[in-house]
Amino acid sequence: MALKRVGAQTVDLPLRPAICGCAAVGGKMEGEGPLGGLLDQVFSDERCGQASFELAEKRLFLEAVHRAIKKAGLQTGDIQFLLGGDLLNQIITSAFSARELGIPFIGLYGACSTMAESLALSGMLLDGEHALRVVCAASSHFCTAERQYRFPLEFASQRSPTAQWTVTGAGAALVSLDERDTPLARISRVCMGRVVDLGVTDANNMGAAMAPAAADTLLSLLTDTHTTPDDYDLIVTGDLGQVGHDLLCQLMREQRMALDEKRYVDCGLVIYDREAQDVHAGGSGCGCSAVTLSAALLPRLASGDIGRMIFMATGALMSPTSSQQGESIPGIAHAVVLESPGRSA
Amino acid sequence: MALKRVGAQTVDLPLRPAICGCAAVGGKMEGEGPLGGLLDQVFSDERCGQASFELAEKRLFLEAVHRAIKKAGLQTGDIQFLLGGDLLNQIITSAFSARELGIPFIGLYGACSTMAESLALSGMLLDGEHALRVVCAASSHFCTAERQYRFPLEFASQRSPTAQWTVTGAGAALVSLDERDTPLARISRVCMGRVVDLGVTDANNMGAAMAPAAADTLLSLLTDTHTTPDDYDLIVTGDLGQVGHDLLCQLMREQRMALDEKRYVDCGLVIYDREAQDVHAGGSGCGCSAVTLSAALLPRLASGDIGRMIFMATGALMSPTSSQQGESIPGIAHAVVLESPGRSA
Repeated sequence: MALKRVGAQTVDLPLRPAICGCAAVGGKMEGEGPLGGLLDQVFSDERCGQASFELAEKRLFLEAVHRAIKKAGLQTGDIQFLLGGDLLNQIITSAFSARELGIPFIGLYGACSTMAESLALSGMLLDGEHALRVVCAASSHFCTAERQYRFPLEFASQRSPTAQWTVTGAGAALVSLDERDTPLARISRVCMGRVVDLGVTDANNMGAAMAPAAADTLLSLLTDTHTTPDDYDLIVTGDLGQVGHDLLCQLMREQRMALDEKRYVDCGLVIYDREAQDVHAGGSGCGCSAVTLSAALLPRLASGDIGRMIFMATGALMSPTSSQQGESIPGIAHAVVLESPGRSA
Repeated sequence: MALKRVGAQTVDLPLRPAICGCAAVGGKMEGEGPLGGLLDQVFSDERCGQASFELAEKRLFLEAVHRAIKKAGLQTGDIQFLLGGDLLNQIITSAFSARELGIPFIGLYGACSTMAESLALSGMLLDGEHALRVVCAASSHFCTAERQYRFPLEFASQRSPTAQWTVTGAGAALVSLDERDTPLARISRVCMGRVVDLGVTDANNMGAAMAPAAADTLLSLLTDTHTTPDDYDLIVTGDLGQVGHDLLCQLMREQRMALDEKRYVDCGLVIYDREAQDVHAGGSGCGCSAVTLSAALLPRLASGDIGRMIFMATGALMSPTSSQQGESIPGIAHAVVLESPGRSA
C-alpha cells in the first residue's frame, strides 16, 4: 500500500494533474471592478437576458463551462465528469446546467469553498487515473443569493459594515491528464478541511465565521508538508473579506506562521474596489474565488509569474433555517497547491 | 497512461475498496416496517429527543456514522474523509454533523442519489490510494423534508397516489483499504450518471421524474462493461417507488435489457409495507437507499447470499424555487457494483 497521504489531511498528487483551460464571466459590477478587463465575458444586464435571476445564474455557469472547454480546444464530449456547485438550495444552478451539458455530474455543496472542493476532488480523481478530463465550476449571483439568504431585494435592507457583496459570476477550470492538452497550472497537493465553528452567529459577518476554518486548513497543510508561508509565492483565500482577512492574519501570527501581507491576498478584496464600489467588507460567494482564480491567478501561473501558490476557498455552512433556529455558523476551507507548469515536480 | 475508465461513464476499481462497517438507524415507521428488525437503532420519538426536526435528523446522521465506525472496530480519528449529504437546504444535517465529528468533510448534493454518489467517489478516492479509510453517509427525515419541499405539516395536505413517503433515517458505510479491516462487500466499479429530464413537472411524482435517469445510468453501466441484467444477482434502485419501478422496467424492456422482477428491487418498495403503512407509491429520501443498503443489503453481501449486485440511487434535482418557476424535474442516478468479499476479482 503506497498511500499518497501526507500527514493528517494533505494528499500528494504525484501525477500533478493539469488545469488546461479556464474561463471567468461576471456581471456589470464585476466588469467595472479591478479584474473587469480579465473576464471572458461581462453581462451588463443582471438577468443576462433571461426571465429570472436563477436562469441568469445558470447562464453564467454554462458560459464559464463552455468557454473553459473551448479555450482548451475541446468539446463537452471530451469531458468525463462535471464537478460543480453553487449557493442555491439544492444547487439548482449546477444541476440544471448539467442537464444542458450532458456530462456525468458530481454535485457538490461546500458553500463558497466549492471551487477548491471541486479542484481538490478532480485532482484526486485524475491522479488516481479514474478520468482523463473533468471540468470544475462554481457560480453565484448577487440577486439569487440575497433573496435566498437574507431579504427580498425590494426590501432594500441596510447593510452592516462587516457585510460582503455576493459576486455575480462563474468560473470554470478544465483539469486534464492528457499530455496533448497545454497546462496552465498543475495541482500538486490537496488538503480537505474540517468544519470549524467558534460560535459566530452574525449572518452579516461571514468573514469572521470562516477565518478559523481557513486557519485550521492552512495550518494542517503547512504542518503536513513541513512548509511555511514563505515557501509559497502566493497564498490566496476565497472570500474572507477585510474582516476575515485580518482575523486570519491574526490567527496565523498567534500560531507563529505569520502571513506576509505582500504574498497573501483574499479574492474578496481584489475582485472589487471596496471604496469606489461600496461593497463594505469585500466580495463573497462561490463565484468570488472561482472568477478570481480563472481570470487573474491561472494566467499568472501559466506565465510563470507565480511559481507555487495555495488556493484555499472558504465556505460558511449555515442555512437560513439553521440561523433562525439559533445555530452558529460553521466554516470550512479546502486548499489546493497549484504550481506553474514550468516548475519541476 | 493506464486509465481505469471502461467505456463512456464506468470506472473500474482494481483495488476493490472494501466496505468494512455499516449502520442504519430509523424512526418509528421505519422500525415498524419490514426492515425494522435489521435497524441498529429505532427512535420512537420523531424529534429523537431533540428540540427540532432538523436536530433530530442530525442525531440520526451522527448515530449512523458513529455506529458504522464502531462496528468496524475503529474510531473517528481513524477516518480521513466524511463524504455525505442530505436533502436540506445547504445540507445542514451533514455539515453540522461534520462539525461534531471533526473529520475532514467533502459535502455532496445529489438529492436521493447521495448514498451512491458518496460510495462511488469514496471508491475512486481509495482506489487511487488517496485515503485509507473514509465514511459515507446520507440521511433524510419526513418532517424536515415535508415542510421544506411541500407544505407545513400542520396543513395536513392530501397526498396523491403517486406521492412517496420520505424515510426518517440515516445510513452510513465505512470504506477501507486497510487489510486489517474485515470486508462486508467490495466496490468493484462505479458509474456516474448524467442529468436526464423528460419533462415531468409533478413534484408528487418523483418516481416518474427519476426513472429515465435510472435507465440511462443502468444502460451505460451495462453497455460499458458488456454485461446484462442477468450478470447480477440483484439490481437495486434507490427510491423510484412503484411508479418509477414500473417505468424503469418498461424503459429497460424497450432497450432489450429487460429486468428480471425477481432480481430487481427498489428500496422504496422494501422499506415499508405499502398497504399496511399507507405510504402510497413507496419510500423516498436520501435515507431510503442508505438505510436499506446498510440494514438489508450489505449483510447479504457479507454472507455471500448476494454475489454481485448493482446499487443505484436516484435523485430528483429540483428545488421548490425551480418548480415554482415552471421548471421540470431533472433526475440523476449514480451506480456502484458491489461484490461479496468471498468473490474473486
